[in-house]
Amino acid sequence: MSQRLKLIIAYDGAQFAGWQSQSHRNTVQDHLERAFRQIEGKPVRLHGAGRTDAGVHALGQCAHVDVNNRKLTPARWLGALNAQLPPQLRVLRCQPVTIKFHARFSAKGKIYRYRIWRAAIMPPFEYGRAWHLPRKLDLNLLKAGAKQFVGCHDFAGFAANRGRPERDTVRNIRYVKVGRRGALYTVEFDGNGFLYKMVRLMVGSLAEIATGKRNLSDLTERLRNLGGAGTRLAAPPEGLYLVRVRY
Amino acid sequence: MSQRLKLIIAYDGAQFAGWQSQSHRNTVQDHLERAFRQIEGKPVRLHGAGRTDAGVHALGQCAHVDVNNRKLTPARWLGALNAQLPPQLRVLRCQPVTIKFHARFSAKGKIYRYRIWRAAIMPPFEYGRAWHLPRKLDLNLLKAGAKQFVGCHDFAGFAANRGRPERDTVRNIRYVKVGRRGALYTVEFDGNGFLYKMVRLMVGSLAEIATGKRNLSDLTERLRNLGGAGTRLAAPPEGLYLVRVRY
Repeated sequence: MSQRLKLIIAYDGAQFAGWQSQSHRNTVQDHLERAFRQIEGKPVRLHGAGRTDAGVHALGQCAHVDVNNRKLTPARWLGALNAQLPPQLRVLRCQPVTIKFHARFSAKGKIYRYRIWRAAIMPPFEYGRAWHLPRKLDLNLLKAGAKQFVGCHDFAGFAANRGRPERDTVRNIRYVKVGRRGALYTVEFDGNGFLYKMVRLMVGSLAEIATGKRNLSDLTERLRNLGGAGTRLAAPPEGLYLVRVRY
Repeated sequence: MSQRLKLIIAYDGAQFAGWQSQSHRNTVQDHLERAFRQIEGKPVRLHGAGRTDAGVHALGQCAHVDVNNRKLTPARWLGALNAQLPPQLRVLRCQPVTIKFHARFSAKGKIYRYRIWRAAIMPPFEYGRAWHLPRKLDLNLLKAGAKQFVGCHDFAGFAANRGRPERDTVRNIRYVKVGRRGALYTVEFDGNGFLYKMVRLMVGSLAEIATGKRNLSDLTERLRNLGGAGTRLAAPPEGLYLVRVRY
């Protein structure tokens, strides 16, 4: 009888071509499935809570997997997996769950954080880990814009695939926290779900407002699907972190 | 007439083969000299405050250089240099100095920081930026050991090249600060100078004491050049940061 394992996973997105399996095999899912196959001795399918694009990081991605090996305890699985994986990809936790648990369908929400480095010079240690924005950012405008996203909205104006729209584009955002420490600005979103590129489009919109390129009304109109003309700015992937999946 | 510029430089040591120029050209000095040559139109010699080994990082390395181009202001130099350099290497400041200033000979001291990650699992974002030490570390022993280094000592027992000893192995350490935040342990040294691999050998010695592999007396005896038998542990380069050069 197989056993279902729930994994908490962290990775430096700069090192991988995103989450989802691809033919070249340098994705997070590929590395993990390869590690499982090494230990299980046969192909294993990993189910992630959601995909992340190339360059996007994870502090607490979640996935589940069904394994046959019942000799290994979860703690042993943790050690065995990390021994196989590249150091920029780590399984932080491994615990047995019932087959009722599904990494994607059981998820109640997700927390994403976006990091912006606002200074003329980007420090070497932030390269690939934050969006370098060498322009003046108005923190109050950033906060005012962020506030607009909170609550239940139709986020069709903040989804990437407008040609092939998702059936339901309504999402509920529990909070958006804006923080600053020196040159580092952070925006954290907690929502019941996010459309493809939604966080990056929200942050792009906030950045345009906070740098004075657009008015706050542009955001609110787009949120009511009244606007939508003109190009939309998606913040680059390297500033985005999947912090946690809520169950 | 040439002008002397003082540069403050930061780099992610994981990306370079150390500071000093080498035939393969992937060193910090090589990248900087290449950038200067691009702008000056002729070879330029850069003088660093000191070398750092491959893997060792800098938050505030210092160097000086003599340039002929007097059209560029220091601020323009800063922008022009960073435009040429890889993103893992940044010139943070550039200021004109008199020819009396010498990056190496004018230095009064240096501050180094060493970062240790003490937990079973090394987070992906710490890879290459800290020493992963998955063993129990006694903070009090770490502090007690660190205290021994403070003051004026003959550090011959903590220098790498015992076969080819430096003439003067006496150095004065102003302070050693030990800190901890969760799994991250830091040891910071301020001294008037450091022998080759001295910081890494001091940290290696502290780690052996704090993990219970050696007694504190081993360190104090080595510091009085009474000990010295047995192998010495040098902490790996990836945990070491040149924080600042004092003038």
